[in-house]
Amino acid sequence: MNGGRAGTERLVVIGGDAAGMSAASQARRMRGPDELEIVAFERGHFTSFSACGIPYWVSGDVPERDLLVARSPEQHRARDIDVRLRTEVVEIDVERRRVRARDAVSGTESWTPYDRLVIATGARPVRPDMPGVDAPGVNGVQTLDDGQALLDSLEHAEGRRAVVVGAGYIGVEMAEALVKRGYAVTVVNRGAEPMSTLDPDMGCLVHRAMEGLGITMVNDADVTKLLTGREGRVRAVATDDAEYPADVVVLGIGVRPETGLARAAGLPLGDHGGLLTDRTMRVRGHENIWAGGDCVEVHDLVSGQERYVPLGTHANKHGQVIGTVVGGGHATFPGVVGTAVSKVCDLEIARTGLREKDARRLGLSFVTATIESTSRAGYYPGSSPMTVKMLAERGTGRLLGVQIVGREGAAKRVDVAAVALTARMTVEEMTALDLGYAPPFSPVWDPVLVAARKAAAKVHETP
Amino acid sequence: MNGGRAGTERLVVIGGDAAGMSAASQARRMRGPDELEIVAFERGHFTSFSACGIPYWVSGDVPERDLLVARSPEQHRARDIDVRLRTEVVEIDVERRRVRARDAVSGTESWTPYDRLVIATGARPVRPDMPGVDAPGVNGVQTLDDGQALLDSLEHAEGRRAVVVGAGYIGVEMAEALVKRGYAVTVVNRGAEPMSTLDPDMGCLVHRAMEGLGITMVNDADVTKLLTGREGRVRAVATDDAEYPADVVVLGIGVRPETGLARAAGLPLGDHGGLLTDRTMRVRGHENIWAGGDCVEVHDLVSGQERYVPLGTHANKHGQVIGTVVGGGHATFPGVVGTAVSKVCDLEIARTGLREKDARRLGLSFVTATIESTSRAGYYPGSSPMTVKMLAERGTGRLLGVQIVGREGAAKRVDVAAVALTARMTVEEMTALDLGYAPPFSPVWDPVLVAARKAAAKVHETP
Repeated sequence: MNGGRAGTERLVVIGGDAAGMSAASQARRMRGPDELEIVAFERGHFTSFSACGIPYWVSGDVPERDLLVARSPEQHRARDIDVRLRTEVVEIDVERRRVRARDAVSGTESWTPYDRLVIATGARPVRPDMPGVDAPGVNGVQTLDDGQALLDSLEHAEGRRAVVVGAGYIGVEMAEALVKRGYAVTVVNRGAEPMSTLDPDMGCLVHRAMEGLGITMVNDADVTKLLTGREGRVRAVATDDAEYPADVVVLGIGVRPETGLARAAGLPLGDHGGLLTDRTMRVRGHENIWAGGDCVEVHDLVSGQERYVPLGTHANKHGQVIGTVVGGGHATFPGVVGTAVSKVCDLEIARTGLREKDARRLGLSFVTATIESTSRAGYYPGSSPMTVKMLAERGTGRLLGVQIVGREGAAKRVDVAAVALTARMTVEEMTALDLGYAPPFSPVWDPVLVAARKAAAKVHETP
Repeated sequence: MNGGRAGTERLVVIGGDAAGMSAASQARRMRGPDELEIVAFERGHFTSFSACGIPYWVSGDVPERDLLVARSPEQHRARDIDVRLRTEVVEIDVERRRVRARDAVSGTESWTPYDRLVIATGARPVRPDMPGVDAPGVNGVQTLDDGQALLDSLEHAEGRRAVVVGAGYIGVEMAEALVKRGYAVTVVNRGAEPMSTLDPDMGCLVHRAMEGLGITMVNDADVTKLLTGREGRVRAVATDDAEYPADVVVLGIGVRPETGLARAAGLPLGDHGGLLTDRTMRVRGHENIWAGGDCVEVHDLVSGQERYVPLGTHANKHGQVIGTVVGGGHATFPGVVGTAVSKVCDLEIARTGLREKDARRLGLSFVTATIESTSRAGYYPGSSPMTVKMLAERGTGRLLGVQIVGREGAAKRVDVAAVALTARMTVEEMTALDLGYAPPFSPVWDPVLVAARKAAAKVHETP
């Protein structure tokens, strides 16, 4: 017992965002302060904020920063969670069950013992090592401070030309945000098409739609340097072939697990650099340490392999599971199927399960079916086109993955496939699903069912 | 072989709407006219029309009738389907494999032999036996002719007061249509709340929302007669307690299977009056007769019992299965889980699985969880409230049913529960579902997951 009071255990949480504070909150719900002391260290200025909301704050859709804070440090403290902001944990001493933390302001360091530890250190953005990357006008969008810096950067920009580096979720969402701010936006993308989480044939639909929105898409392009001008401020993004003038640059290249501390402490990391846990989010081989959120790898229920999927929705579920288990209850996080949804203006993009290249890498023999349908009955006002691509295992017919690109109603339709993947349904079984139908909501055959019918018809074809 | 050409079989279809013509079309896709002759009898003027679309034609959202016709008789004929309009089958001679049909214009009757028969006679609206029910100004909304008659009736109405009798799907959709036409609408409903396909606590939300739209809801009221005035035209709807002035009346009381022909032919009917089939939609005990659409009972995968669920989406699936099987292929319709979606103006209503009273009738011990959440992240513009009610079996935790009432994004969220019901998931399993999350589409915990969490927490409570 490390706690200050007799009979009290101490839970230490490293990281004050979704996973860490969900864990702390749920643990508090289950055990009162007389049983469990909770200390949470956060190196930044905020707790429990929605990083996923930053693009919409930048766009102006969300009018102020504090709306993105689900629960402030004061709110956590009011529930007897001792939140220590601007305090970075710099070492985990697994042997002696304690962490060393540094106060960012004073620089002083001290050890805090724990009975149970939650590691929720999150992710760090990939920041390419190239000239100009630290110049004023170049911005990440990982934290609320980043978001504020970007807004300041927009304020000081001399012109209205923005370049977004990267065309994944963050890239396309930031492209939308900057279009809404009135910028001429160029997206420079290393891949053949935007949204590499989709197959290229579906990414191509996103590409065309983005161009339709007035966004310039540059594919197959590696950024080599960022050129600077007056006062050292960024003025252009350079690839091997070209230069793209920029008054502001947003880096949306992706993130990696922030697991330096865990690595130094000898905790188990996977191939993607994330912490490895069991289904209760307990770090493998460590009875009293849990980890969740963007610093862990997750089990992929479709491939059977570990993956790195840094999404807020998983982080919240991890925190909920950890808090329940730490609090003495039972809960598990069985894994993910790879669902993700996004939008660029009114274009909705969704995916779940395996892409063609994932299925090939796993050595699976599969068929694909791509169909075009509509969001509502064709005769109902506002009906808009939707493309659904479905992958199924040849022979067995097991659903492997679904990708959807369309307008209103496209994104959340992928949830049907997410549940079907979880239940290991076949596409033949899916054709009979009793999905909601009424003219304002769907054609009489839901687009997902149309895709399932086409895939089911191909499952028994010889390759 | 009854067909005209040697080696040709003849398929006779009774009923030219969704189930019948889907069956005919799919059979044609699988077998050419040299192998299979197809004759379809339809007593009305149209084929393959969307009855579900009639309220939106009446409202003006769908500008013209013909948009509701998915495929015209001419289009069917161009694909070698011999459609005979205004021709009513009046007898099925099962023994001698032939049907007797009457030409509605000439009154002549003749026998047509068949090798295979599809019965798709649909439903007939419940038309209460009360004074005034046949008066001008009183309208059903079952067929396109009914829709046209209603539009004519609105044209001739002297005032702008409409009474809708019945508050199920058709009733609430017609209430919306008449509100959009500028009518003052009163809905007179026998039940305690509108939408008896929901539990009353959820129906109450619909009630309040309808009142918010300016619709007068009269519950617990039995219509006793329709009062007529000048030229015999309807002038009011009377209950035991009151009279509701009406310039036009819409009957939306529901439908019953149209199985008079089948009954007379000695074919097997269930407790709800619908034809009984196996999973290939073959009429039980009759190798060469199939039935589908609003004239059959369907297997409920949740209760394990037969139910009557007259919905266009099932009719289309039935037709697809029948056509495939008649064409020599393999297909089944395993059953329904009871999904239905609807809307009144911007209020969306959805349900799947069992209501409380269904679960009680089955002798199940269950828990319920009702939660309020939002359609999008709370901070995202346009986020609107949504109420989700979930039923789960006590002890096992098996999902039994879900009801959702809300605004944008509420209706189709029920599909997640429909798939989970089909897969016989527990609410505990549902809490971990990897559903799509991004601020424009969902809170970080999708409302369905919030309900599942609450239900899962109650599953092991003692009653």
